[in-house]
Amino acid sequence: MNAEIIAVGTEMLLGQIANTNGAYLAQQLAGIGINVYYQTVVGDNPERLEKVLKVAESRNDLVLTIGGLGPTEDDLTKQIVARHLGEPLVVDDDAKAKIDSYAATSGKNKTPNNAKQELKIQHAISLKNHNGFAVGDLYLNQHGTSYVLLPGPPAECLMMIDRELIPQLKKHGDQNRVFNSRVLRFVGIGESKLVSDLADLIDHQTNPTIAPYAKAAEVTLRVTASATDKNQADALIQGMVDQILAIDGEYFYGYGDDNTLASVVVNQLIDRKLSVTAAESLTAGEFQSTIGSVPGVSAVFPGGFVTYANEAKHQLLSIPAEVIKTQGVVSKSTAIWMAQQAKAKMQTDIAVSFTGVAGPDKLEGQPAGTVWIGIAYRDEEPKAFLYHFTNGRQRIRARSVMAGLDLIRRRLAVH
Amino acid sequence: MNAEIIAVGTEMLLGQIANTNGAYLAQQLAGIGINVYYQTVVGDNPERLEKVLKVAESRNDLVLTIGGLGPTEDDLTKQIVARHLGEPLVVDDDAKAKIDSYAATSGKNKTPNNAKQELKIQHAISLKNHNGFAVGDLYLNQHGTSYVLLPGPPAECLMMIDRELIPQLKKHGDQNRVFNSRVLRFVGIGESKLVSDLADLIDHQTNPTIAPYAKAAEVTLRVTASATDKNQADALIQGMVDQILAIDGEYFYGYGDDNTLASVVVNQLIDRKLSVTAAESLTAGEFQSTIGSVPGVSAVFPGGFVTYANEAKHQLLSIPAEVIKTQGVVSKSTAIWMAQQAKAKMQTDIAVSFTGVAGPDKLEGQPAGTVWIGIAYRDEEPKAFLYHFTNGRQRIRARSVMAGLDLIRRRLAVH
Repeated sequence: MNAEIIAVGTEMLLGQIANTNGAYLAQQLAGIGINVYYQTVVGDNPERLEKVLKVAESRNDLVLTIGGLGPTEDDLTKQIVARHLGEPLVVDDDAKAKIDSYAATSGKNKTPNNAKQELKIQHAISLKNHNGFAVGDLYLNQHGTSYVLLPGPPAECLMMIDRELIPQLKKHGDQNRVFNSRVLRFVGIGESKLVSDLADLIDHQTNPTIAPYAKAAEVTLRVTASATDKNQADALIQGMVDQILAIDGEYFYGYGDDNTLASVVVNQLIDRKLSVTAAESLTAGEFQSTIGSVPGVSAVFPGGFVTYANEAKHQLLSIPAEVIKTQGVVSKSTAIWMAQQAKAKMQTDIAVSFTGVAGPDKLEGQPAGTVWIGIAYRDEEPKAFLYHFTNGRQRIRARSVMAGLDLIRRRLAVH
Repeated sequence: MNAEIIAVGTEMLLGQIANTNGAYLAQQLAGIGINVYYQTVVGDNPERLEKVLKVAESRNDLVLTIGGLGPTEDDLTKQIVARHLGEPLVVDDDAKAKIDSYAATSGKNKTPNNAKQELKIQHAISLKNHNGFAVGDLYLNQHGTSYVLLPGPPAECLMMIDRELIPQLKKHGDQNRVFNSRVLRFVGIGESKLVSDLADLIDHQTNPTIAPYAKAAEVTLRVTASATDKNQADALIQGMVDQILAIDGEYFYGYGDDNTLASVVVNQLIDRKLSVTAAESLTAGEFQSTIGSVPGVSAVFPGGFVTYANEAKHQLLSIPAEVIKTQGVVSKSTAIWMAQQAKAKMQTDIAVSFTGVAGPDKLEGQPAGTVWIGIAYRDEEPKAFLYHFTNGRQRIRARSVMAGLDLIRRRLAVH
């Protein structure tokens, strides 16, 4: 089954907001074996939207629109698709009840614009909106093109995709085939090395398929299997995952589309009751901010140090000025001192430290991207590792943070 | 003139990478009066790309492709567009010289795949690649659809848009009209309030036009004018900017598409030789990391504190445990103590502090999004302000950081 996603909205067309819904939808459809061959963005303009619908219908089994279901005058997607299909709009009772109840409890009058959001296309299956009012539609057409209408706000759209659309498409899809997929996440290995390590598996893939994607400082693989039932699909996936991990398991850190290395590491620390701190120079707080993004981190993270200037390393971490003077601030010794002192001062189980050249200028004669990362773990001898990152200040800092998280992950993997 | 942007690449189609090039290109085209009516994404598939070209040609004066100019087998855009136009590919001498010189100095043999990148469509104007090897094309067609071919890697694409494409389109466009635009950036005001404040101007806009965009924690306005020469366009823009700033100048912080509040504030601090530090609780280092992203910040930022736990506020900032116990950690007093103590310990001119509830859970009975931000400026009485942010942990933290930067900006604006 092949599909086209049409994002409706002038802001997206003009590049003012990114089409993140379309990207997410394409990924979820791939997971159930629906191939997205085209994505189109069109403004809030009835004539051009209708043109785009006609083109999409001519080349796809399934057309999915995102946006234009809201209450304003600009929101016209449902009206135009309904007219295109020759179906009237009818009231969806659940959506109406939700809007009426909101109007009653908030004391605001229900306007005709509010009421627009309770309409669905006749003969469509309603897709409930868990984060808003506008109801979505799944209009199945056995002998032609089927249509899906989703709302534009990401919180509404993503929830509707996960909880309503994908389950409905699975239910109404080929009853004899089940698709399942799993995302494996890797850190500390580039896409090209991973792909070349796995070349035999990738070259001979049929079912399951393996799709590698390079992200900012990590690589993911999506393994997708089709089978006659879920257990068989899972078994196919597991067989492939075992083969992949036998080759590159060292770099594997977790499953899932929305997982992050910070989340995996912080949750391991919480589970094992290990506290953590950091002393950051070039990253200027980005490591702590990143672990701070994980809910529940307060159980293991008391706080830490941003020691950007040399005097701050001396003042806040009591690193002898002599060390920095003789060894250099971008050095193994300084990284080790920073980790050790941060751990001692905050009395944590673990500390990591970052000292390096964010750029654009050289520092102590060392080029941008030269980074030392230290780790102190309980009573063990603290260590520091040298990295050479590239591609500008923000990438150098982001990759430093990932490398620091990876040092903790690797230490925790030992026992 | 109306235009369609076609992004070519399976990774973009499947949502693995975002179509940031397309968004940027649409913005730049709008700035010279070219309206993008459609954007399409298609995979690395010759048949489907050709279909998409035909549809685009039927509805646009200008079709711009992004991607598929590289050296691999998948890169087929130039070949397919050339065939579609009935033009052969010919060698571009400058691109060839660059590839030959790279091969000579790197000692690597030039392969046929490398050579692909030096080809351009006959009768096209070459668009030089400042960050790579693949040459771009501007194929002008006075009586039909014109074509532009741009490379996919963002560093190559954006530079080619700025330095080659836009100047060429201006040169070959309507010689009697000049378009110019300026982006105004606002913080501390929502899109709806800004638009309602400026309703009179927006409702009556013709030339210049005013386009508001809401970003993560700020709003921008793009003012675009067309005129017979650049001076006249600039004068029209300046007249509109003056009217806008007379109404909402208080919230205006700078010009430019790529400007940031962090960059404006840090550069003001550098200019005025004012040093800054921070004590961060809920933001966990994100404020310091954000100012750390600005090159040159080391001149005014020695470092600072991440005091996530109450004990860390006591230990690192010497805040009496009694203050936190009696006033609460999410309180005006704690925010003021944090700012004051951070400033004293780091001996800076300015310190900001952040204490609040990042969520998802309540803290001290206060809901997620309750945030106190403190500022201590030289010998002045330190102050703290209460904010209520929404939309989840990451948004609450990001908006806190913007509000902290805005407090500094407002203080610096006084004198």
